[in-house]
Amino acid sequence: MKKDIDALMEKHQIDALLITGPAGHNPPMQYFTGNVHIGHGDLIKKRGEEPVLFCNPMEREEAARSGIEIKNLAEYRLSELMKEVDNDPAKATALRYKKMFSDISLTSGKLSIYGLQEAGQAYRIFNELKAILPDIEIIGEMGHSVLSQAMETKDEDEAKHLRHMGKVTTEIVGRVQKFIQSHKSKDGVVVKTDGTPLTIGDVKSKINLWAAELDVENPHGTIFAIGADSGVPHNGGNPTDKLELGKTIVFDIFLQQAGGGYHSDFTRTWCLGYAPEAEQKLYDDVRKVFDNIMEGLELNAPFAPMQALTCQMFEDLGHETIRQNPMITEGYVHSLGHGLGLRIHEAPGARDEKAFFKTGVAVTIEPGLYYPSKGMGSRIEDTVYVNQEGTIELLTDYPYDLVIPIEEA
Amino acid sequence: MKKDIDALMEKHQIDALLITGPAGHNPPMQYFTGNVHIGHGDLIKKRGEEPVLFCNPMEREEAARSGIEIKNLAEYRLSELMKEVDNDPAKATALRYKKMFSDISLTSGKLSIYGLQEAGQAYRIFNELKAILPDIEIIGEMGHSVLSQAMETKDEDEAKHLRHMGKVTTEIVGRVQKFIQSHKSKDGVVVKTDGTPLTIGDVKSKINLWAAELDVENPHGTIFAIGADSGVPHNGGNPTDKLELGKTIVFDIFLQQAGGGYHSDFTRTWCLGYAPEAEQKLYDDVRKVFDNIMEGLELNAPFAPMQALTCQMFEDLGHETIRQNPMITEGYVHSLGHGLGLRIHEAPGARDEKAFFKTGVAVTIEPGLYYPSKGMGSRIEDTVYVNQEGTIELLTDYPYDLVIPIEEA
Repeated sequence: MKKDIDALMEKHQIDALLITGPAGHNPPMQYFTGNVHIGHGDLIKKRGEEPVLFCNPMEREEAARSGIEIKNLAEYRLSELMKEVDNDPAKATALRYKKMFSDISLTSGKLSIYGLQEAGQAYRIFNELKAILPDIEIIGEMGHSVLSQAMETKDEDEAKHLRHMGKVTTEIVGRVQKFIQSHKSKDGVVVKTDGTPLTIGDVKSKINLWAAELDVENPHGTIFAIGADSGVPHNGGNPTDKLELGKTIVFDIFLQQAGGGYHSDFTRTWCLGYAPEAEQKLYDDVRKVFDNIMEGLELNAPFAPMQALTCQMFEDLGHETIRQNPMITEGYVHSLGHGLGLRIHEAPGARDEKAFFKTGVAVTIEPGLYYPSKGMGSRIEDTVYVNQEGTIELLTDYPYDLVIPIEEA
Repeated sequence: MKKDIDALMEKHQIDALLITGPAGHNPPMQYFTGNVHIGHGDLIKKRGEEPVLFCNPMEREEAARSGIEIKNLAEYRLSELMKEVDNDPAKATALRYKKMFSDISLTSGKLSIYGLQEAGQAYRIFNELKAILPDIEIIGEMGHSVLSQAMETKDEDEAKHLRHMGKVTTEIVGRVQKFIQSHKSKDGVVVKTDGTPLTIGDVKSKINLWAAELDVENPHGTIFAIGADSGVPHNGGNPTDKLELGKTIVFDIFLQQAGGGYHSDFTRTWCLGYAPEAEQKLYDDVRKVFDNIMEGLELNAPFAPMQALTCQMFEDLGHETIRQNPMITEGYVHSLGHGLGLRIHEAPGARDEKAFFKTGVAVTIEPGLYYPSKGMGSRIEDTVYVNQEGTIELLTDYPYDLVIPIEEA
């Protein structure tokens, strides 16, 4: 959690964090600033001290809303620095960092760097900085970094955002279901009043409209995939496809608070009208595993054995799994779930041996089975949160029905 | 333009490009893949050859929609590679790149890297790669890079997206104006039928709703700032603020195609009901400069002298400018404009000595004056495109009226 950052810096022997980039859609920066509108900032947090945020004077008022101490980036006169380094923007940026660091008495120690940036620019700038600041060791943490470990567990403030996103998500899913059911079917296809087929594109338009209405974003799009497409986990679905009855629809929706905030993640599998035997069996197998895993969730349990158990259960039911063969594209082909917060995928991961259901963890549970060759797929996904009392909270409360009845025209 | 990439690689002596990250909201990747839904990919383009895209098999169908040759990233077995390097994810990722490069016969030369990535990860991974692939020189281009130079000029396909975004933007601005004018004023404030004030938050909600309806995103938010807030260029506006008559409203809207595509950028300054003398004078000064610059735009003209001319004109009108003092927060405090495309800010920039109005360039023209201490600000911004015939096309055609009449209740 946020309050653990100094302790994590101590544990990782990190003396300072540097976070660069915009506030929006840049999780490390937004983790500190909250949802403010700044296009570029450099936030520096020394261990045991409050962070400071260097930003452009045009954005000073937005930056101030973060409550963080603001410093004026324009005072460092990048255009003047450019002249000192033969107009090399990487060298000038490194020189600016050197001056900024000096002004806040950061002159030695281990500095861990974060924030979304163009890969080539990060590589150049921080190698230049290393060259001119030999007493500072630049650390590019990966995996269990200070920030990913802090962000892995959410405090009560963050939990409020996650709960809200769960509610918004199920509200929208409910509207989608009602919207589809407000139509009738004709010759095995859902149709509008004018007799033309309702399409996946129509459904997705509604989702985006309701998302805007409820002040959330849909930056990654929605998966609403039918038939063979539902058999490929990340196939988003073809907008011009009709809603045919009796085919599996994988409906996976992952919304984010406006401005790049917290996420939710949720999937249901639907068959409109009726479910043929094979589709029903596929769904039942997924449901069996899903229910079993959900019932077994408990505080401080390790995550990886649940992935193993999921594979075991699917194998016992006759399906091939990713632990038998990491290259498979039919059967159970992915992992059981992932943490989520300001990122849609973050720690803990279901295949991480160090991942536990600690207090503050928010994860998805999402077993699925995929048979594109048979024209079907099925996944069920909820988001759960281990709250401050150690209770497993379901953030996405919605019925699990496979069959969504559709009236015939 | 895209077709120039090989020539630009030749000019910059770059042998291959590596682009990493998702397709959505990652301009370098989307530049090649178009709007497809992939969470992570590595695209490699060797000079004189077609690109190849390494991606996860779960995302193979979405990736295939790009039309690019797909390779299976899972075949490189990251989890196996981890064991070879004591579970260091940066070393394992570097090792995977080495194997991927080897499979496409990329074993020496200059490799330029791109794509949004966590700064620390980019720094670590590519330094590790450098260590194990001494025959490849890793280049982190900044400023005038191969890709930024290619992306600076848009071809006819890209222009279609830009034109569409211009039309969507002015459509939404028209709806906002009509929406506000459908209300009446009472005691100097725009009110709803129940007598409560219409707020900036109400306006912004409508904007997001219409954006969703028209299949565009608003990832950076909208600036709709009134009074003193309009005097700070990047102040987004306070959602609970009332729409008071006779105050300057800076309405700056910068939408993006859904999934992270092309942008538009547009600003008008409005005074609801009436404009007091000082506000009218401020607006007239901006308008004079805006009209002068717009009339002077011509094919292949350099951009920087227009920034100088803008400063000169504002100084002649009695305003302080950023060329006199880069630290000012009152007067003309920013630059005249910027290129835009998959990024909201990209080349060419109005202060770049190498920037010209070449065929294919799309830029904003946006002079403004800011006096937060006097409770006002004003900016006018259009987006223009230098089309394949060398004509300057206005992409954001909308009236320039300062005063928006509001009926009294």
